[in-house]
Amino acid sequence: MKKADLILKNAIILSMDSSMSIFNPGALAIEADHILDVGPESDILSEFQAEQTVDCLGKVLMPGLINAHTHVPMTLLRGLADDLRLDVWLMGYMMPVEREFVSPDFVRLGTLLACAEMIRSGVTTFVDMYYFEEDVARAAADAGMRAICSQTVLKFPSPDASPYEESLAAARDFIKRWKGHPLIVPSVAPHAPYTCTDEILNATAKLAIEFDVPLHTHLSETALEVENMRKQTGMPVIPYVKKQGLLDAKVIAAHCVHIDEGEIRTLIHSNTGVSHNPSSNMKLASGIAPVSKMLNLGLKVGIGTDGPASNNDLDMFEEVRLASFLAKTGTGDPTALPATTALLMATRMGAEAIHLDDITGSLTPGKRADLILVDISPLHNQPHFRRSNDAIYAQLVYASKSSDVTDVMINGKWVLKQGALMTINLPEILQQSQDLAHKIDAFLTLREQSILSKLIAIGGAIEEETFEVQVKIPIKDTQPVINALSSPEIEIIRNRHYREYDTYFSFEDNNQGYIRYREDHFIDNQNNVSNVRSRLTHIGPAREGHIFSNVLLSRSRYIAPAIQSLRFYREYFKPRFENEIEKDRLRFLIKYQGTEFFINIDTLIKPGLGSFLEIKSRTWSKKDAEQKSQLATQLAELIGISVETATPKDYFEML
Amino acid sequence: MKKADLILKNAIILSMDSSMSIFNPGALAIEADHILDVGPESDILSEFQAEQTVDCLGKVLMPGLINAHTHVPMTLLRGLADDLRLDVWLMGYMMPVEREFVSPDFVRLGTLLACAEMIRSGVTTFVDMYYFEEDVARAAADAGMRAICSQTVLKFPSPDASPYEESLAAARDFIKRWKGHPLIVPSVAPHAPYTCTDEILNATAKLAIEFDVPLHTHLSETALEVENMRKQTGMPVIPYVKKQGLLDAKVIAAHCVHIDEGEIRTLIHSNTGVSHNPSSNMKLASGIAPVSKMLNLGLKVGIGTDGPASNNDLDMFEEVRLASFLAKTGTGDPTALPATTALLMATRMGAEAIHLDDITGSLTPGKRADLILVDISPLHNQPHFRRSNDAIYAQLVYASKSSDVTDVMINGKWVLKQGALMTINLPEILQQSQDLAHKIDAFLTLREQSILSKLIAIGGAIEEETFEVQVKIPIKDTQPVINALSSPEIEIIRNRHYREYDTYFSFEDNNQGYIRYREDHFIDNQNNVSNVRSRLTHIGPAREGHIFSNVLLSRSRYIAPAIQSLRFYREYFKPRFENEIEKDRLRFLIKYQGTEFFINIDTLIKPGLGSFLEIKSRTWSKKDAEQKSQLATQLAELIGISVETATPKDYFEML
Repeated sequence: MKKADLILKNAIILSMDSSMSIFNPGALAIEADHILDVGPESDILSEFQAEQTVDCLGKVLMPGLINAHTHVPMTLLRGLADDLRLDVWLMGYMMPVEREFVSPDFVRLGTLLACAEMIRSGVTTFVDMYYFEEDVARAAADAGMRAICSQTVLKFPSPDASPYEESLAAARDFIKRWKGHPLIVPSVAPHAPYTCTDEILNATAKLAIEFDVPLHTHLSETALEVENMRKQTGMPVIPYVKKQGLLDAKVIAAHCVHIDEGEIRTLIHSNTGVSHNPSSNMKLASGIAPVSKMLNLGLKVGIGTDGPASNNDLDMFEEVRLASFLAKTGTGDPTALPATTALLMATRMGAEAIHLDDITGSLTPGKRADLILVDISPLHNQPHFRRSNDAIYAQLVYASKSSDVTDVMINGKWVLKQGALMTINLPEILQQSQDLAHKIDAFLTLREQSILSKLIAIGGAIEEETFEVQVKIPIKDTQPVINALSSPEIEIIRNRHYREYDTYFSFEDNNQGYIRYREDHFIDNQNNVSNVRSRLTHIGPAREGHIFSNVLLSRSRYIAPAIQSLRFYREYFKPRFENEIEKDRLRFLIKYQGTEFFINIDTLIKPGLGSFLEIKSRTWSKKDAEQKSQLATQLAELIGISVETATPKDYFEML
Repeated sequence: MKKADLILKNAIILSMDSSMSIFNPGALAIEADHILDVGPESDILSEFQAEQTVDCLGKVLMPGLINAHTHVPMTLLRGLADDLRLDVWLMGYMMPVEREFVSPDFVRLGTLLACAEMIRSGVTTFVDMYYFEEDVARAAADAGMRAICSQTVLKFPSPDASPYEESLAAARDFIKRWKGHPLIVPSVAPHAPYTCTDEILNATAKLAIEFDVPLHTHLSETALEVENMRKQTGMPVIPYVKKQGLLDAKVIAAHCVHIDEGEIRTLIHSNTGVSHNPSSNMKLASGIAPVSKMLNLGLKVGIGTDGPASNNDLDMFEEVRLASFLAKTGTGDPTALPATTALLMATRMGAEAIHLDDITGSLTPGKRADLILVDISPLHNQPHFRRSNDAIYAQLVYASKSSDVTDVMINGKWVLKQGALMTINLPEILQQSQDLAHKIDAFLTLREQSILSKLIAIGGAIEEETFEVQVKIPIKDTQPVINALSSPEIEIIRNRHYREYDTYFSFEDNNQGYIRYREDHFIDNQNNVSNVRSRLTHIGPAREGHIFSNVLLSRSRYIAPAIQSLRFYREYFKPRFENEIEKDRLRFLIKYQGTEFFINIDTLIKPGLGSFLEIKSRTWSKKDAEQKSQLATQLAELIGISVETATPKDYFEML
């Protein structure tokens, strides 16, 4: 009799090995961290003598599930913001909160919370990408989970690094320190082509190749990403990253929703593995990845949950089922991606996709003992049909729930025993997570109290805060005014012609002021649009008051470049009302009596409110304002327009 | 103080009422079967005095979920056959098994099993359609569930009725007996337009109107259904059923995957409610229903699981989440069908869609006490954000699981208390269900032991079982043979010209024989295809033997009309190999020496094997066979062809 540390017997064993062997009743012998043998119960029991034998009570014994793409610390942000468009969700909520809260403690707590949830639901290996990844690795190792931990590198400042060289150096140090760990595979993650430079893609690939570790990235997640890549480089995403040398590394590519057959072949030839993330792709409406085609052509595809802030959980049973459902929906073929294939993607093929198939993914002698027990006796899984071998896979994929997992072993150690977590102090973790959630709630609540603070949260820097002296007078005709500007007393410094499209957001509470989204179309001498810029302006509610009868000391304005779309700001600020104004503007910067003024000659096109003369000048003090308002009045008279009919109203107030 | 029977306190109450009131902490007062009042805990406790007060321990208290479309007895067939196309699944597996097993006992057992699963997962009301619906109603009432039970009417014979008049009369009796029951609403279900006649649609609508009960049906589930309807009637499905008077009843229309804006408006005007079934539509690849558009236009849409044989469970938490995910996927818009709307569809709007909103669907004074407690403390639901009111709905929809439901009350009675079923003897039900599954497995296993029995299972009647004497001889040219048939010794009874397209399925086990799918294209005198027929032939493996040197007593053949497509048979029989043969055939029925023979003059086109003369005659006895083979040999010689070169091979054996 051969010796074993442990025998698991009386199980329906789904080995998920290359012959898809099923042993029922089966048994499995373990020594230290690895599987000695697996087979029919009678064979194993007659061949091995073990210190301990566990009766699996007829449960399913199968390889642990592999979560091929996630951001585990974001478990702390589960349910923070939902039903939003990707940019609003990311730049309006996730990134401001991450800038404020993400720290080594944050990622440790989030990782432990995530590991508890993943262990409970039968996951034994996960592939992570986040900041402070060494702290993710430490927490995962403490929880006893197998993980590929990928340190993010970005061209933008991130919570753990300002210039990208810092995060690259951190990734190198991390990989050096952790390479060879029994549970953790350190890795580097250039976040995505659109958040990296060519240099970053190339440097991270070289780093991964140097240490022979996987490289983890997001590729072709949205149609917009592909469209932008085509515009910028003339090619879609996969050829582009190939050109940067990225595919020379052992790549784990998340998403690949928008790739064609040629790109699939490129990925196959470079031995890239893909993580398909059905919940995330559905919830964020990214599209339906061509998974059936990938599989038919021979690409290795695993399944991931993506981060729990966009899912909103880490339930691989749900993902496996959705992978099958979504492929059927996408192809219109109910025979597409059958249950057996879906489960394979979450086990052996998933291990291939993440380049760990030498040690995990199937119950094969020599591989690490990464395995789970699933109880198939619950009500929602009854009755059982056993006519075909596929039936047990269909049962696991279409009817089993993550809550049916009772026991989990990773690397030969039990981390879940009869539903009890062996490595994580759950009450403590839950308490700390909830305490943090309260702080994040308070931070966002405070921020959302004013439109201005919401603007600051996304705008980063505010460019301008000014006071203006303003005279605005309706005019019958613009030409006499234009002619009058040639007066020798007026020096024209420069002039511009614009078509301006303004959208005003207003809110229930008038004290919030207004948000103006403006597109300036510059009109050249040939009357063509030569350039377009967008600006976002917050217009405070309070007027500083009239200086003279018709000269206004204008409200405060905060201006930021509008780097997002109008649609983004609409969904982010959720205005109560919206108004649109379109006008033609001749804008002159002039000097009069040694003082600079802007003169706008505006013709309102939509709505057709007529033409107006605006004389404006920035100001800094009451005294300066008084002096400038006197000059403005004189200037109006010089131009031949009386300030008698001047109006203190902004255009959108005339609607 | 007012009196109440029961107060539920210390709950996060989501009333789902028209103002979406949330009370936290809230309380709810119940008398007998209905809600007396609901509101902030302090208000309710100071206003009511109850015999019993239950502390809800901070759980969510909300209306029970409404499963707007299902076939509950099919829970017994969960996992029987998956990853198949609808026709193979339905006609290859479901219908043969239903024909054999469905009985009043079957539906009672299946209903109890389903009720146990639904109660456990927070469903308080379901809308069913099946056979022996009175037994479904009885079982549902015994389980204490609220249900609309719809007796199926079909133009085909069904397990509970031969002609449709029988099932219509049964439906009338059933409605009469059960109308006014506190839990059960009896109803009639014309199965679908394509399985009913105009007369059935009209008669069932009249029946539903007469008794003021809902009418339950399937509409526009697949693109094929719409295409066929357009071909047959020139209009899509909704206008067609409107024309038959169907929409004059209170209709609950399942699916509506393929309907346009005009059809949506028709459904709104007729106050039809829709049941959207995301898992079923995804798993069967039926398409993505335009649910966002339906909701935007004002249609009432509930959510259903469909039958657990195509889902494979009754988990409404999963359906609600998928309804949101699928709408986002279908529109490409992540803001589509937000969590709050999805949960509304499973509660108040679901009640409107099934015409029961006067009594259930929200926690509103006067409505029946149909409610559930959901524990939101589990790990997979942590942490909690409370910045916005939407967060709690997002938490329930995107992170809660059916297993988080702890208590369920229907019509004022607890049916689940702290996870324990109060009305169903679960161990007994599970045992009976598994016993039945063994019988079904045995039935199908026996059937699948031979290709012939699989053919009989779907073909219904077998047309022919014959033995043939056959001589087949390669010929250089067909014209001399044709000319030779004008010999005075040969009487030509009739002749035909075909183009024949054959697909041969063969199997691992040669003893299974072959399946031939043949399309006969009849060629008329103008050389046009005048008619097409398809036939399915099972060719037994064993040759009966040679009679003379080159005359074959052929294998047995079983022939059935091929009423399904080639694709159906391919997916149903799962052949190991497929071969195609295309040939031109001149077929003569002649009389020679008082005996009838078929003479085929074949030219093989694909593959190009040349031309052949076949002389065949049916036979019944060894003696008759010997006599006919002698005649056949003489006939060949008369035609001028020597039987020396005759071959015993079938064409597909020459490949």
